[in-house]
Amino acid sequence: MTQSASSVPHHYSAMLSLRGQGVVKGYAIGRAVVMGAAALEVVHYRIQPEDVASECTRLKEAVVQARDELQYMVDHLPEDAPREMGPLLTVHCMLLDDPMLSDHACELIAERHYNAEWALTTQGQSLAEQFAAMEDEYLRERGADIRQVIERVLRVLSGRPVVLPSFDEGLSEELIVVARDISPADMLRLRGARFGAFLTDLGGPTSHTAIVARSMNVPAVVGMGNVRSLVRDGDLLIVDGMSGSVLINPPDFVLEEYRRRQAAYADDRAELGLLRDAEAVTLDGVRILLEANIELPEEALAAVAAGADGIGLFRSEFLFMGRSTLPDEEEQYAAYAAVVKAMQGKPVTIRTLDIGSDKTLDGETTVATNPALGLRAIRYCLANPDLFHTQLRALLRASAHGRVRILVPMISHMHEVHAVKRALDTARRELDARGEAYSNTVEIGAMVEIPAIAIAIEPFIEQLDFLSIGTNDLIQYTLAIDRADNAVADLYDPMHPAVLRLISHTINAADRAGKSVAVCGEMAGDSRVTRMLLGLGLKEFSMHPQQLLDIKKEVRQSHTNALRVKVASALNRAERIDLSVLAG
Amino acid sequence: MTQSASSVPHHYSAMLSLRGQGVVKGYAIGRAVVMGAAALEVVHYRIQPEDVASECTRLKEAVVQARDELQYMVDHLPEDAPREMGPLLTVHCMLLDDPMLSDHACELIAERHYNAEWALTTQGQSLAEQFAAMEDEYLRERGADIRQVIERVLRVLSGRPVVLPSFDEGLSEELIVVARDISPADMLRLRGARFGAFLTDLGGPTSHTAIVARSMNVPAVVGMGNVRSLVRDGDLLIVDGMSGSVLINPPDFVLEEYRRRQAAYADDRAELGLLRDAEAVTLDGVRILLEANIELPEEALAAVAAGADGIGLFRSEFLFMGRSTLPDEEEQYAAYAAVVKAMQGKPVTIRTLDIGSDKTLDGETTVATNPALGLRAIRYCLANPDLFHTQLRALLRASAHGRVRILVPMISHMHEVHAVKRALDTARRELDARGEAYSNTVEIGAMVEIPAIAIAIEPFIEQLDFLSIGTNDLIQYTLAIDRADNAVADLYDPMHPAVLRLISHTINAADRAGKSVAVCGEMAGDSRVTRMLLGLGLKEFSMHPQQLLDIKKEVRQSHTNALRVKVASALNRAERIDLSVLAG
Repeated sequence: MTQSASSVPHHYSAMLSLRGQGVVKGYAIGRAVVMGAAALEVVHYRIQPEDVASECTRLKEAVVQARDELQYMVDHLPEDAPREMGPLLTVHCMLLDDPMLSDHACELIAERHYNAEWALTTQGQSLAEQFAAMEDEYLRERGADIRQVIERVLRVLSGRPVVLPSFDEGLSEELIVVARDISPADMLRLRGARFGAFLTDLGGPTSHTAIVARSMNVPAVVGMGNVRSLVRDGDLLIVDGMSGSVLINPPDFVLEEYRRRQAAYADDRAELGLLRDAEAVTLDGVRILLEANIELPEEALAAVAAGADGIGLFRSEFLFMGRSTLPDEEEQYAAYAAVVKAMQGKPVTIRTLDIGSDKTLDGETTVATNPALGLRAIRYCLANPDLFHTQLRALLRASAHGRVRILVPMISHMHEVHAVKRALDTARRELDARGEAYSNTVEIGAMVEIPAIAIAIEPFIEQLDFLSIGTNDLIQYTLAIDRADNAVADLYDPMHPAVLRLISHTINAADRAGKSVAVCGEMAGDSRVTRMLLGLGLKEFSMHPQQLLDIKKEVRQSHTNALRVKVASALNRAERIDLSVLAG
Repeated sequence: MTQSASSVPHHYSAMLSLRGQGVVKGYAIGRAVVMGAAALEVVHYRIQPEDVASECTRLKEAVVQARDELQYMVDHLPEDAPREMGPLLTVHCMLLDDPMLSDHACELIAERHYNAEWALTTQGQSLAEQFAAMEDEYLRERGADIRQVIERVLRVLSGRPVVLPSFDEGLSEELIVVARDISPADMLRLRGARFGAFLTDLGGPTSHTAIVARSMNVPAVVGMGNVRSLVRDGDLLIVDGMSGSVLINPPDFVLEEYRRRQAAYADDRAELGLLRDAEAVTLDGVRILLEANIELPEEALAAVAAGADGIGLFRSEFLFMGRSTLPDEEEQYAAYAAVVKAMQGKPVTIRTLDIGSDKTLDGETTVATNPALGLRAIRYCLANPDLFHTQLRALLRASAHGRVRILVPMISHMHEVHAVKRALDTARRELDARGEAYSNTVEIGAMVEIPAIAIAIEPFIEQLDFLSIGTNDLIQYTLAIDRADNAVADLYDPMHPAVLRLISHTINAADRAGKSVAVCGEMAGDSRVTRMLLGLGLKEFSMHPQQLLDIKKEVRQSHTNALRVKVASALNRAERIDLSVLAG
């Protein structure tokens, strides 16, 4: 049989190929294990007025039981469980502790005379909608926590056991979990088996599936939409956790190609391991700082283990999430100080609260027409001085234990910088009056994530100690697109020349002023654009700890000066940048 | 009695002073005439199932009567009625013709068994919410049309006559109308009297009150919030239509000061009238193009009367508003051709449809989380090729009658420019096949209103014939703020150095390439920033026809080269620009 002019056999097109968001790199080839519907069939029925009290008791007992089950898991975590598992399960326990959930559900039962399952589902939807309306991608994902704990309680109410996939341990192939979504508790139960990859219909890069898979270093593709309805148990799957593509029942020649890629990738990983103690220095001798982004205090350990030069971004939102009261100064201080101590003198950059307002003064919940262009982050903090001063005092006190840098998000106007400095002065005076210790060398920096600050950066640099470029938001505002809006997500383009010019302008201005500037957005952890960033003059990258060695490898193979020349000439042309120009 | 060191007597502070948005310049001093509540007290009651049909008939008859009243006004417009009145009243007739309103209200009656007033109010609220969620400030204001026609129908249903202010014609002072909102029909009834100013609780710069007041050249302050509850009939008011401030029962020395300002302003206006036929040339001999922004075809006459050099922005949204079907090619062609003919060979810049999508594919109404960063304008048009091709064919056909320039909003990526050009090729081929005439010299331009295009403008300029800077949106995206969001409206700042740098960069790049570039946002019609724009090198301004002579006066008193030097040095400092530096 003669091969056609095209080297691709014609039955290739019959193979089903799906695409999602690849959140953990690596290849997997194995058999699908489809997890039962995470969503239970919930029956709604009316109850008699005299049964309201007992229905509430039934609901509250189920909440307690679900909570106890989770607490048991926390207390009996296997030693080899992923590091993030404990904190994630604890967040779920806290959600079940919060009266917000069961009290409101009981009120619904009393008002409407429907069963506990209905009340719980209704209250859950209302909470989930509040999360869905949030601007921050990370916080939006936390709506999944609500859904997952409510599903746990519904399962307890139903009396039915958790549906776990059944699989034949004798199979020679790896198993690939296909699910609607995977809660941390599910993840823990699945832990025993050898899994090659995780595929989920829901979720994004900051979903729990992504966080845990990343820490287990298992390839994962999330946000696939309908993978669970297209894959059957036992289907042979190829998963590419980098591109996010999944091939179902591929022909042999494709399988062979991917086995080759998988082996090459494994060799690469092994080689990477050797880099752990190597210095992040370019071929022409430029030392590059590689720092870690973390979301929970516990993740500082992963940062240390990966050899990070510090914490480039510690998000403080976790302290404010999934609860009905604000964290007080002591609670915040404990969390910040824990990370500062864990980093043993290395710099810890903590970002002040980056959430938007969904409350009006009269207590009613409203959502701005364009929350991304509304009262968010530092705008929200300056409008809520009590909340902001409490956080600043906690941050200052943490500085007594190491090197703290305070990072302020969403700065666009000089008067905001002045207001932050006045707030810090107030916080210092309050601590002085109480005799609390803090360092006098805490650095103040701003996120560069709004076009205005990047375009007119000079006076900001004069007033600040450091900058951190948040490429995710900077790209969204520069291109006027919301990446979470599927209708325009394809317009999101980190290689748009306008984006690269803003990054370049910011780095050059900071260099001239002798101030440090990092990139802490997704671009910093994406090894495909490391050379581009080096060529733009970047010397400080902050990323998920898991991505650190990949970036270190790229750094060690790059020649900064050569890249700077190539990138400058590409930027002048102001066309979309073709990364192949920078290939080594 | 000795005067204190301060020249302001101490009872000054007791005078009540209010502030709104000044939309028509000028001073008025006169007595308040407070218009009765525009919102009727509407009683809701249940009806019997057998009365559904008669209730629907009652509703539909009221709609027809309200429509007939409006039509009568259109047919009997006084000769001296403001030019815009006819089209505005016609829009109201169209809204009442649209089955969307009465059919849906009747469905509500049949479903819920409430009275016609309730159904109309409910349906009106639902429509008003859809408008309120729209991105475009102009379209948002059109929600007021819905409210106004529904109030007309409710008045007919109530059997009560329209409440008109009563006033003593013998008063020597001018009368100042104080109202919640003024519909075009109300405006027409009020026309007979001599009014010194209009003050409304609602409305913005593109509300009907603003549009009609501007065309009547009567000072107006809108969006005052609660002026109607703070002013009583007969109160003495001072209105400053420029600053938007209103003084209630001021002391004599304030009155005297404002009488002096009023007289000086009247002298200025008289002097301005002499400029009508003067050339817009700077002191150093640079000819500046002054063009008009229009929203309705009829406004082309005002542009001609003001001596405009062309139409710099003809918004095409009016054709698509307040109706349930799309306008066909013929209807669009007629509207565009009317303007092109009226301008007698002067350039007419028509912007393609600038609306967002609030529909999903399954027909359900949804609103994007951040509509300003969503599927709007050219993004929406490229996603709806039938709609876009229809508009392009109509635009091309209009070019047979004069000089048409097609202006594309919200361009951020080069591939969008290529897609627009392909769509134009398709439209031309379709017209060729039908043997329709069109000009081969139609120019294609882009709005510069997204930071990305301004920052990386060079390849866009290469592919386009002209640019038009939409400062309103450019400012909002550059600063990441939604000006319509009260929580952050104070961060809107046209003098932010980042904004001025983007305008400067765009103008300089266009100059180098020999392509024309205009500003068509609010800044172009604001005489306080004319010198700034001249200093940035701008030679083409497009604004409301009413603002044209003011700007011409500024132009004729400015020395471009001197301003360029001053502005360049201010921009380099990258601090917020103090306009006083540029004072003549």
